[in-house]
Amino acid sequence: MASEKGVTPRSEDYSRWYTDVVQMARLADYAPVRGCMIILPYGYELWEAVRSGLDRRFKETGHQNAYFPLFIPESFLKKEAEHVEGFSPELAVVTIGGGKELEEPLIVRPTSETIIGWAYAKWIQSYRDLPVLINQWANVVRWEMRTRLFLRTMEFLWQEGHTAHATYEEAEEETRRILDLYADFAVNDAAIPVIKGRKSNQEKFAGALHSYAIEAMMGDKRALQAGTSHNLGQNFAKAFNIQYLDVNNELQYCWTTSWGVSTRMIGAIVMVHGDDKGLRLPPRMAPIQVVIVPIYRQDAEIEPVMETVRRLQAILKDAGIRVHVDDRDDQTPGFKFNDWEMRGVPVRLEVGPRDVQQGTVALARRDVPGKAGKQFVPQAGLVETIRALLEDIQANMLRQATEFRDSNLFEVAGDYGRFGEIVESGGWALTWFCGDRACEEKIKEDHQLVSRCFPLDQPHPGEHGPCIVCGEQATAMAYFARAY
Amino acid sequence: MASEKGVTPRSEDYSRWYTDVVQMARLADYAPVRGCMIILPYGYELWEAVRSGLDRRFKETGHQNAYFPLFIPESFLKKEAEHVEGFSPELAVVTIGGGKELEEPLIVRPTSETIIGWAYAKWIQSYRDLPVLINQWANVVRWEMRTRLFLRTMEFLWQEGHTAHATYEEAEEETRRILDLYADFAVNDAAIPVIKGRKSNQEKFAGALHSYAIEAMMGDKRALQAGTSHNLGQNFAKAFNIQYLDVNNELQYCWTTSWGVSTRMIGAIVMVHGDDKGLRLPPRMAPIQVVIVPIYRQDAEIEPVMETVRRLQAILKDAGIRVHVDDRDDQTPGFKFNDWEMRGVPVRLEVGPRDVQQGTVALARRDVPGKAGKQFVPQAGLVETIRALLEDIQANMLRQATEFRDSNLFEVAGDYGRFGEIVESGGWALTWFCGDRACEEKIKEDHQLVSRCFPLDQPHPGEHGPCIVCGEQATAMAYFARAY
Repeated sequence: MASEKGVTPRSEDYSRWYTDVVQMARLADYAPVRGCMIILPYGYELWEAVRSGLDRRFKETGHQNAYFPLFIPESFLKKEAEHVEGFSPELAVVTIGGGKELEEPLIVRPTSETIIGWAYAKWIQSYRDLPVLINQWANVVRWEMRTRLFLRTMEFLWQEGHTAHATYEEAEEETRRILDLYADFAVNDAAIPVIKGRKSNQEKFAGALHSYAIEAMMGDKRALQAGTSHNLGQNFAKAFNIQYLDVNNELQYCWTTSWGVSTRMIGAIVMVHGDDKGLRLPPRMAPIQVVIVPIYRQDAEIEPVMETVRRLQAILKDAGIRVHVDDRDDQTPGFKFNDWEMRGVPVRLEVGPRDVQQGTVALARRDVPGKAGKQFVPQAGLVETIRALLEDIQANMLRQATEFRDSNLFEVAGDYGRFGEIVESGGWALTWFCGDRACEEKIKEDHQLVSRCFPLDQPHPGEHGPCIVCGEQATAMAYFARAY
Repeated sequence: MASEKGVTPRSEDYSRWYTDVVQMARLADYAPVRGCMIILPYGYELWEAVRSGLDRRFKETGHQNAYFPLFIPESFLKKEAEHVEGFSPELAVVTIGGGKELEEPLIVRPTSETIIGWAYAKWIQSYRDLPVLINQWANVVRWEMRTRLFLRTMEFLWQEGHTAHATYEEAEEETRRILDLYADFAVNDAAIPVIKGRKSNQEKFAGALHSYAIEAMMGDKRALQAGTSHNLGQNFAKAFNIQYLDVNNELQYCWTTSWGVSTRMIGAIVMVHGDDKGLRLPPRMAPIQVVIVPIYRQDAEIEPVMETVRRLQAILKDAGIRVHVDDRDDQTPGFKFNDWEMRGVPVRLEVGPRDVQQGTVALARRDVPGKAGKQFVPQAGLVETIRALLEDIQANMLRQATEFRDSNLFEVAGDYGRFGEIVESGGWALTWFCGDRACEEKIKEDHQLVSRCFPLDQPHPGEHGPCIVCGEQATAMAYFARAY
């Protein structure tokens, strides 16, 4: 029970704070294989919440789930030139199967564009078969050198959507629809404000025409790409011969997209909301929304207290509120308070002997520390009280995260020195950027960071400005910041 | 659209019938990697139904989900002698990662007892940490030589439960609780009658003390093991040092269990319920419970028919019934009828111009062919009519499967000739069996089959009888049958 000790303060060592929270809140643990992790039950419940929040949105927008093989023939990867170049340093390769050396090695999928491209070429014949809107929930493997729990692991869980369309416009519309869907999930379920934007050519997905992402600011102000949506153009369609007969009976290449969100999202939730007491979970995602801690000093008090506790538990559960009773008899209430604060439960409900007599309970909200976050309320109407409180916590967490983020965004035009000060102090600089490789390389050399995205919501739409590096007229502003 | 052609009749070639149904009902397709399959959206929806039916039951019985790594160090597999012997011929091995030869090859998990054993040894300290009740939904890989869609594929999806307990009795109770849970799912959700039984020592899981299984009879009378639950004794606890301090502060080895159900269950649903028209799905599992087919001859009829169709669709959907409207305008109603029969939708609802005028609809149930399965009912009260019909279909499918199974079970005592006749004609023989390896080998040699299980529900409890092979007194009867 590490929670008696507490986590490393964020100000002391943010990176250690993160690892402490993930382990002490029992979200994940290290595995015996380098770079892999074990997702513990509490972390997996959070993943189930991510999964159901996204899956519902995918289905509402006409997508279906399917499942494609884990193994991809090595030859498939090589069919799209940029794709193989991007992924080949990161591959895990099966060379032995059933005791024998394989004739063609099998790649453990790092992503599935190629094998799904093969299938789509087989399935799609005519414009009547389009669009194909398929998603898969799966594990993927990328041989990463420097790994961190949830943020970058050799194996991770994710969803990958793969769609095929008749026209560029439809593919682009899908790519943007998914970006909006991701942002809707991040903001409304995970209480994470995100910036929707287009990646620079240097930072786009290997094989894409262009890539979009949602970018979020973590508690240390670094950026984290929390979801990506790619318009693959006809690149994979040409590599895998995904063609259809159009209404005029002419053969055309399809336009395809792909998009993904991974277990990384859990790292984002930890880093956006956590504090020096540990995790803080937005109520809509929290596996436990209300933890009930019974309080008693004498044995004679146990029965009446527990009777009330069980009654309130049943009432909340029936109302669809995720409630847990901490009835451990070998721990003090103080220990339990710390433990559930560490685990980020939004509301703690205390029931003591006086509450039993007076028909009250004490409520403590995780997002407001100390006495200010505590209130005594009647047991009557508890469901409504708690529903309103959970809504308020959800809104407050989004507000806090948005305010923190907004106070660290800085617009800078033409002044490379000022640009450097902003990004070196950890802020995000929004600046005119021509998007050229040379300019991005220069910034990378000077400041060890690259562009995050050209936000879709531009501050000066239709205007031009001098690129922060080369001074040529640029048509859009981009964010630059250190990132995970 | 293969369904115009229809499937190979079961009587002609059962094996081809099965493959036809799986492909024509669009449950799965072959993958470009030998022995792997692509689970198509309709098949994946069935898997989601299996998953949610089991997951709900796991959570109700106190289990939590977690996720362990795909890769297992080769050395782990070798720690339990029987286990490595059982699995080593079937392994896929990663020898290259990130472009380099690995020092220790990584096994793609064929099952996770070893890596979970490693974790439990780390997590479990005291009797207060017990029991540990964890399940994982995952993909696993076994290098199979002869594969068949869903029934035996190189990669498959499954759940694997892994629990640790303080005593043998608790582990045994858990093993049996899960067996009951599997049977409850099979019977009540999948409408598959199953026999719960204990496997012979020869047929138990590699590394288990003993194994239980649910055995189902397919449409060709062959047996299929649809779920297994293993009491692992202290074998893995000793191999991985999973120990706890008991109440007397003495160090004890844990008792562990493991249990699994896989995508094989979908093969069972196909083979238990399918007929020469294709798939038949039990309503509780069916992705689509009611398909609405609009009927019209003239263009002027389209609008009023579709208006009624949309209204009824909304009413059914609001009532929680999974309904789909087949509004394809390039297919005839006759084609659609065949297509949805092929795909096993329990109820077809037809709306024509006369139905619009008279306030009626036509209902056709998939489990009763021809006119006998068709009825005309008022639109008023449609939700209740359909709810009752779905319940009736669910019950009827279980009844049909149970009658078919029971008419092919034969008890035989002491007469090895008669035993041979039964199993050679495809029936299941229930007979006294001592359980010895030599006797099982003899039957295998003579009839190319082994025991299925000693049913828990013995026909002559407490009695003895002569083993069908050696004639020694045996304490239990076992089923013998050809199996998948």
